[in-house]
Amino acid sequence: MKFASDNWAGAAPEVMQALVAANEGAEPAYGGDPWTRRAADAFNDVFERECAVYFVGTGGAANGLALSCLAPPYGSVVCHEAAHVQMDECAGPEFFTGGAKLIPVPGAHGKLAPGDVETALAGYPSRPPHGSPFAALTITQGTEYGTVYAPAEIAALTEIARAHAMKIHMDGARFANAVVAARSTNGAAPADLTWRAGVDVLSFGGTKNGCLAAEAVVFFDPAMARDFEFRRKRAGQLFSKSRFLAAQFIAYFDESLWLRLAARANAAAARLSEGIGAIEGCRIWAPTEINEVFASFPASVEARLKEAGAEFYPWVTPGDPADGAMRRLICSWATDDASVDRFLDIASGA
Amino acid sequence: MKFASDNWAGAAPEVMQALVAANEGAEPAYGGDPWTRRAADAFNDVFERECAVYFVGTGGAANGLALSCLAPPYGSVVCHEAAHVQMDECAGPEFFTGGAKLIPVPGAHGKLAPGDVETALAGYPSRPPHGSPFAALTITQGTEYGTVYAPAEIAALTEIARAHAMKIHMDGARFANAVVAARSTNGAAPADLTWRAGVDVLSFGGTKNGCLAAEAVVFFDPAMARDFEFRRKRAGQLFSKSRFLAAQFIAYFDESLWLRLAARANAAAARLSEGIGAIEGCRIWAPTEINEVFASFPASVEARLKEAGAEFYPWVTPGDPADGAMRRLICSWATDDASVDRFLDIASGA
Amino acid sequence: MKFASDNWAGAAPEVMQALVAANEGAEPAYGGDPWTRRAADAFNDVFERECAVYFVGTGGAANGLALSCLAPPYGSVVCHEAAHVQMDECAGPEFFTGGAKLIPVPGAHGKLAPGDVETALAGYPSRPPHGSPFAALTITQGTEYGTVYAPAEIAALTEIARAHAMKIHMDGARFANAVVAARSTNGAAPADLTWRAGVDVLSFGGTKNGCLAAEAVVFFDPAMARDFEFRRKRAGQLFSKSRFLAAQFIAYFDESLWLRLAARANAAAARLSEGIGAIEGCRIWAPTEINEVFASFPASVEARLKEAGAEFYPWVTPGDPADGAMRRLICSWATDDASVDRFLDIASGA
Amino acid sequence: MKFASDNWAGAAPEVMQALVAANEGAEPAYGGDPWTRRAADAFNDVFERECAVYFVGTGGAANGLALSCLAPPYGSVVCHEAAHVQMDECAGPEFFTGGAKLIPVPGAHGKLAPGDVETALAGYPSRPPHGSPFAALTITQGTEYGTVYAPAEIAALTEIARAHAMKIHMDGARFANAVVAARSTNGAAPADLTWRAGVDVLSFGGTKNGCLAAEAVVFFDPAMARDFEFRRKRAGQLFSKSRFLAAQFIAYFDESLWLRLAARANAAAARLSEGIGAIEGCRIWAPTEINEVFASFPASVEARLKEAGAEFYPWVTPGDPADGAMRRLICSWATDDASVDRFLDIASGA
Repeated sequence: MKFASDNWAGAAPEVMQALVAANEGAEPAYGGDPWTRRAADAFNDVFERECAVYFVGTGGAANGLALSCLAPPYGSVVCHEAAHVQMDECAGPEFFTGGAKLIPVPGAHGKLAPGDVETALAGYPSRPPHGSPFAALTITQGTEYGTVYAPAEIAALTEIARAHAMKIHMDGARFANAVVAARSTNGAAPADLTWRAGVDVLSFGGTKNGCLAAEAVVFFDPAMARDFEFRRKRAGQLFSKSRFLAAQFIAYFDESLWLRLAARANAAAARLSEGIGAIEGCRIWAPTEINEVFASFPASVEARLKEAGAEFYPWVTPGDPADGAMRRLICSWATDDASVDRFLDIASGA
Repeated sequence: MKFASDNWAGAAPEVMQALVAANEGAEPAYGGDPWTRRAADAFNDVFERECAVYFVGTGGAANGLALSCLAPPYGSVVCHEAAHVQMDECAGPEFFTGGAKLIPVPGAHGKLAPGDVETALAGYPSRPPHGSPFAALTITQGTEYGTVYAPAEIAALTEIARAHAMKIHMDGARFANAVVAARSTNGAAPADLTWRAGVDVLSFGGTKNGCLAAEAVVFFDPAMARDFEFRRKRAGQLFSKSRFLAAQFIAYFDESLWLRLAARANAAAARLSEGIGAIEGCRIWAPTEINEVFASFPASVEARLKEAGAEFYPWVTPGDPADGAMRRLICSWATDDASVDRFLDIASGA
Repeated sequence: MKFASDNWAGAAPEVMQALVAANEGAEPAYGGDPWTRRAADAFNDVFERECAVYFVGTGGAANGLALSCLAPPYGSVVCHEAAHVQMDECAGPEFFTGGAKLIPVPGAHGKLAPGDVETALAGYPSRPPHGSPFAALTITQGTEYGTVYAPAEIAALTEIARAHAMKIHMDGARFANAVVAARSTNGAAPADLTWRAGVDVLSFGGTKNGCLAAEAVVFFDPAMARDFEFRRKRAGQLFSKSRFLAAQFIAYFDESLWLRLAARANAAAARLSEGIGAIEGCRIWAPTEINEVFASFPASVEARLKEAGAEFYPWVTPGDPADGAMRRLICSWATDDASVDRFLDIASGA
Repeated sequence: MKFASDNWAGAAPEVMQALVAANEGAEPAYGGDPWTRRAADAFNDVFERECAVYFVGTGGAANGLALSCLAPPYGSVVCHEAAHVQMDECAGPEFFTGGAKLIPVPGAHGKLAPGDVETALAGYPSRPPHGSPFAALTITQGTEYGTVYAPAEIAALTEIARAHAMKIHMDGARFANAVVAARSTNGAAPADLTWRAGVDVLSFGGTKNGCLAAEAVVFFDPAMARDFEFRRKRAGQLFSKSRFLAAQFIAYFDESLWLRLAARANAAAARLSEGIGAIEGCRIWAPTEINEVFASFPASVEARLKEAGAEFYPWVTPGDPADGAMRRLICSWATDDASVDRFLDIASGA
């Protein structure tokens, strides 16, 4: 009953096997190896176009480095007020960009709505050089509240951003889960959720979904990546034994492993969410579209769960609709039905 | 009818004379001159205690350098969403602090209310090292909406900040105007508006109120200024001919010139505000407590004013209550009644 | 006998009068005033071409902001090892550029020699993305050792820099003194010492030579200034009452005041240098080409001078050829012959 | 015959097995897992004291983050002119520290000599706030030229640094190789090479010596690590699945694997160096004390080696004594004697 984070899960067996297999002989460092090239090709296949792909070690680094290519140090980056870049990276985007300003915008269920973004932008009229100029919009797919943007929703946001000369970044720490969700609801492919909807750069996460530590920054317009390699090196994010990052991605994409893993996590979360929602006094606070469940429990239920060893955290963000009562439960590729069912049994007092 | 900014006014004659008088002979550079020492003494007198006082060239530099002594590069600085540090310094605080995060908080009439601050803080629960830790609260006195905090209001805010281990900064770009306003409403002295109410560091502005370019950072606890001199030098804010900054402040404080100048500006604004408020269809959007008037005019009135050469700017901030209709009119120490009256005559169609 | 710094002198009377004259009425802030436009025109005249000119408050800010437009945060800036940017700005260039690396290069008498620069560059072979890429070369005119580059010397350096795709910056804190020196030795005009010899950006100093606080960044290719205004604002170097900076420059250039002031300072230094050089046991360490004298004195002579109240500082830099014995004596526009002669009398024991 | 870098080798089998073994079940993220605690204990054992140990992904990050805890953004860091922090991290230390200045110092064979450091320091006399104050000294053990500092040599340097109030950092990217070398020449233990000789913080490298990607920052005085966790998180160097870093270190230290691996690499390099040195026309440029050989070859020999597929790079640094002729050959834990012997056979024309 470990629902604290998808980061608690280990690596998928296929990924670990690929790592072992890549550990053969001596190969050029810093990305000159064949694994790195093959992994980059796999990204091109997944996104149906030539991309500029760079591996880094963490999602925070992916986001920060990506934004540093989109925003000058005096520019502004618009984000959801509960976004990981705003809440969970200890001012990392400000660090990587050299001081860009984040403009947090509210929105239900972790999603930015076009109207809210327009209202926020209107509050910062262009007055160069006094106001920090808008530089980038960043959205999260799937969001920090476990919801998913449809391609049209993304396109509506990127259109607004373009009208203000902003670049668009997507934080895809749980991109695989979003792809699985989108596929079943609107048939969208990875390309539909990104560049076809106007996204310039994607932080593509593998770690939460079955890798050990594998994140990538994917530029759909390689011109924007102009100085990425210098920035990555400077930030200590160029891994010498690049093949060990690449091998994870190769396995991750092989025979759609990434989607199979994410589908498992999403299914477990759906089962959990449905079950909780059916229990008297419990409440689900956001649609469970990927592998995260946002719920609140009566005090007695929560005490019972904790006593039984269930692990999950409170979830508080600006504009918290639950006034501190919300709990986040995350399922991973490794979550089994038995664990979910036991949680539900305890919660329901069965 | 130039109501665009108090920065449009020149220097008060007394200040200019002091500058001329200080231009005698050779004197040590970088603050080793007697004017600099005398000016520092004057600050101590005004604030009724020993302060660590440093001169800089602009208000933006004062704010940025002050905050850089209060917040680590990964820390958060809470401010009003319309604060100058957030809206008008082109991401300067982020630059000076090395990437600290600004947390904008709404509040009526440019003022932070304790409840709103507490709500905002609650949205960022402490989760080291994921969330950027709270480092400082910054408030503006008089505010960007022309209002003034009473000592008790400041104390209420600083108490909240202390409870979160935050330091407190005050942006006093229009501190003189606030002192004049406070004196007449609650008898508060400069010390009451600052350190006695819990403020650690003050950006003290002279430029808008009759100086040419004279701003100071005043640390009420000199220990916090530990590395200010290095930071100021590094930022190109240590002026070699320091006596020319000091001489301005000496004249500024001499025989309470600063308060006399501010009183004139405040009075002109009060006359203007009252007059506008009495005109059919016009509206005043915030109490006119210092030298700024926030008004809206019927389109025909505004057209008439502009045609007659009146100068003033639109005023839009996040949470704009006037939906773009607000105009900011600022009076300075040099604004004369005739100019105000002519404006009112035109506005009223007299 | 105050030879500590040209910063100890006040402002020239003409400059101070211009300041007083500019203090008339209300004028647009932030550079929208007519003085600012006239001053910019004067720069164009002096440099015989259209320039992009921006005023700032200090030489350190001019250097740092200029370099921030030439070097990315991960780039390298090659400078003389005794350069002001390396020795005297408390890591200011690193601050303004967001972390660029300075590469100090030795050279006799404060001057970079092409061979030394080439040797230095050869030590940092291009290995992207591991090594920080060369971004800019900065040279000082007149140098920190009181010497002057001839146009051909500058051209030789800029040619090397161009071959490595570097931009060229000139620190002209004492540019006026260099112009006066060059005029008499090789007839070079300001344009010959800068853009005609390959310089991209000049930090143009007025403060040391008769202004109160007036420095400018002059871009000979306005395209390089693309985001200068944002950077200046962010750094708190955009002065609201810009007319007071502009008025200084207008007076400074009027009827060649700047060159007349510098000629006085240079002449006083030449007189001082010649006199010291003729005294038994004294030594001049660098050719006195502008207003700075680098000398050493027998201990008894120095004691006598100090006792008589002469003011000057030791001068130590990396590669110090004098092993701590060197003293720097600076003359200003305000230095009179009597003061020089008295110094020489005391030094010579007359 | 792959002698390009120890980064070309894969992971030692024991390390890979540990990784596989750690991939069991769900465990707390971000260092809350038992592997992380066990690995930290192993560090304490190795260094014979309680340390504050933090894992990061790369050596550049370890160095940059370590220095950011020792130097303020306006401080100076003294290093060897060929140091990795100066030459190979794309201005990373400047990035992590927020703009600290690196002061490169020459020295034979990659080692700083006390006299050279004192000479360098003397060139930057203390003139607050003009000069950037000295903050830290960083030395590399084993050095970038394959040499090793004896404990007494380290102590001599740290004593000088202390006298200037500087902290001391050691870049131990090849610390294991240095330990093996020191053990056999002077019996020094890891503690003797670090804190007992005055080192405050060590970047401890595992990657080059048989790990996949495992680096640690080891603070011998935990007080200096005060805000390391915030800085690491902000820089995207806090790995969510920390157990996979920890597991590598646990295996690395188990039964002295790290020293056994390093001993193999050192022995291979010694064999290679001795062999090259005996070949007519070849030259060894620095004592081969760890796993790096710096050699030059007659052109015909080099051509023959390259044609046979030998891989190695030119090695050029500031002060290059070989004028471009030097080549760096690195052996790793995986280098076998056959490969060395084949190289020597080809080189010698046998």
